[in-house]
Amino acid sequence: MGGEAAAAAAGQEPGRRILVAVDEGDESVQALRWCLSTFAAAARGDTVILLYVRPAPPTYSVLDASGYLFSEEVTAAIDRYSREVADAVVEKAQKLCTLYSKEEGESHHEMKVEVKVAVGDARTVICQMAGKLGADLLVMGSHGYGFFKRALLGSVSDYCVKNASCPVLIVKS
Amino acid sequence: MGGEAAAAAAGQEPGRRILVAVDEGDESVQALRWCLSTFAAAARGDTVILLYVRPAPPTYSVLDASGYLFSEEVTAAIDRYSREVADAVVEKAQKLCTLYSKEEGESHHEMKVEVKVAVGDARTVICQMAGKLGADLLVMGSHGYGFFKRALLGSVSDYCVKNASCPVLIVKS
Repeated sequence: MGGEAAAAAAGQEPGRRILVAVDEGDESVQALRWCLSTFAAAARGDTVILLYVRPAPPTYSVLDASGYLFSEEVTAAIDRYSREVADAVVEKAQKLCTLYSKEEGESHHEMKVEVKVAVGDARTVICQMAGKLGADLLVMGSHGYGFFKRALLGSVSDYCVKNASCPVLIVKS
Repeated sequence: MGGEAAAAAAGQEPGRRILVAVDEGDESVQALRWCLSTFAAAARGDTVILLYVRPAPPTYSVLDASGYLFSEEVTAAIDRYSREVADAVVEKAQKLCTLYSKEEGESHHEMKVEVKVAVGDARTVICQMAGKLGADLLVMGSHGYGFFKRALLGSVSDYCVKNASCPVLIVKS
């Protein structure tokens, strides 16, 4: 809001805050590509916010297929793996942002990129973050966050289209 | 495609073709506003295509509440009314485009606006037109095309998010 007020005072339009939900899938990479090539403009002062939502670590006892309780070591390993995936996804997304900035030859107007990694249910977290971060647009792929979960809960993108406080752009591969 | 090839030959990026589905609702006006203020840029050579889909006229016998068949005069009157609504919606949308062009002070770069009025089921027609018109983006409100139809068939925007060949942007009021 501070930046927006300053830009308004200077008679400029404030840059737009574009929230891109990234995950492991190709569609989210395409969504980010679309955003960088077609929408976000560093010269306009836009900010691209990369958001990755990783699932909450299991805090209660979980039975594996053979009926044994997961040990603490196993849940810790799952959590560690999830953090590593988050790091890899975010790193790839950041590289893409840098690549597009260079391609655009906008070195004097480098794209502002913010990274957020949140934990929880992707559907609700993405919508909450869209509001909290003052996003002007939410960009995402249509099929993110896993087949089985989608079959059970409906797609994350459907939920966000209905519940996010800003316009939502869905990119399909 | 011809314009695109020419632009590519001249070393310019071709303007984007932005299909905006308009209807009687406020959300579609908001979607168009969003498109004009945030996305479409006359100076980039973008084209805004306004698409209104009106329902097919009843071609078979329809019973009214009292059990009488609709006469030909009645179906003709319904069809005439539907055309008038189409004209009114499209006119309002065109005025909004002109207004934004003037506000932007882009009189030397006036926004290219095309108008299409199609007849049929909005869901399928919008998706077909997105492909046929080579749209780079489809913009629409989330609640268009009537409450009862939506309750029966699901929302038009849900269908388009899943079936359109290009990225889809949904704007809510």
